[in-house]
Amino acid sequence: MFNEKYPSQILQDAVEAVSSLPGIGSRSALRLVLHLLRQPEENIRHFAHSVERLATDVRYCRTCMMIADGDVCPICGDSSRDHRTICVVESIRDVMSVEATGQFRGVYHVLGGIISPINGVGPSDLNIAQLESRLQAFGEEASDVEVILALSGDVEGETTSFYIYRKIAPLGVKVSTLARGLGFGDDLEYADSLTLGRSIAARQPFRP
Amino acid sequence: MFNEKYPSQILQDAVEAVSSLPGIGSRSALRLVLHLLRQPEENIRHFAHSVERLATDVRYCRTCMMIADGDVCPICGDSSRDHRTICVVESIRDVMSVEATGQFRGVYHVLGGIISPINGVGPSDLNIAQLESRLQAFGEEASDVEVILALSGDVEGETTSFYIYRKIAPLGVKVSTLARGLGFGDDLEYADSLTLGRSIAARQPFRP
Repeated sequence: MFNEKYPSQILQDAVEAVSSLPGIGSRSALRLVLHLLRQPEENIRHFAHSVERLATDVRYCRTCMMIADGDVCPICGDSSRDHRTICVVESIRDVMSVEATGQFRGVYHVLGGIISPINGVGPSDLNIAQLESRLQAFGEEASDVEVILALSGDVEGETTSFYIYRKIAPLGVKVSTLARGLGFGDDLEYADSLTLGRSIAARQPFRP
Repeated sequence: MFNEKYPSQILQDAVEAVSSLPGIGSRSALRLVLHLLRQPEENIRHFAHSVERLATDVRYCRTCMMIADGDVCPICGDSSRDHRTICVVESIRDVMSVEATGQFRGVYHVLGGIISPINGVGPSDLNIAQLESRLQAFGEEASDVEVILALSGDVEGETTSFYIYRKIAPLGVKVSTLARGLGFGDDLEYADSLTLGRSIAARQPFRP
């Protein structure tokens, strides 16, 4: 009767919607949808409403372009943070990773992606122009500003870092990047040779 | 600023809703929500609407209790099927598995679960009473009806099968269950001993 199909169009629509998410196939989607169906009606409505608000209510911080509920995100609105140390990251997930370290008291700039010709993402698709005007607004004080390029270490990340560096270095800001090398506690024996080689080339003074 | 928290309540609500699904942790949920956020607004709305319709529009076939768009599911509404061979299954996923074999031309009865004292699921939580009244409606012709108990082979499945058997055997219907044994093409060497033992005990006449 229904090979590979569903007995209900509503069920099928929900399964297709859920299986459009990355990493979720139609079998998992069916399992998730049937789980939802077993929940009380108000839970299902709450789920749907939470998702719908992503379309209607999410805004972006006008300063750092991070997802926010208002015009300004909690980090940019926090006067106790150092607003002259700006960490440039690919996405909000990276903001959360850096925040989780508890080691950074500056602010962020969220690019919203990375330059990737294969995926059709160019500089104009990212929040790079916003970074430039944000830095231009410092005017004469730009020399007190440090921009940390905290992008991934692959080719796309390096390309994006280099592109941004060329755009912002003329403004007079300091530009730095993350230290790379062996992880703390890593064993030489198991390190990949690229990382080990770079760790030797970028060796640091020993501070006992 | 926001350890383990999110810069936006809307984002947090959506992540919590998605991570309430089985097998999806908060990191995966964040990844899925950020993926949704990158979609066009109409896609997000469509997703939310598809889920909401699960709460508002899903109905159950009045005969077999399967999810349906109307009063009767496509299988019960198909007069070319054998309505006197009723396959009792735990969930709609089992219906789809049996349908995928292409070997069954009867109809179904969906229990909506399995008797499981540990999970607080008793007989009254399942569609067993509906099965009884469905069979009672056959009256004198019940002896022409076959009920196939196609439940899982674990303790809960066996318990549920036995409970249903006691309820429906007095009505005069034939009750059968799935053949169990080594899978077709299975190697004796790798079979678990319980399955192998039962396959020997339930040996069949050889038909060359």
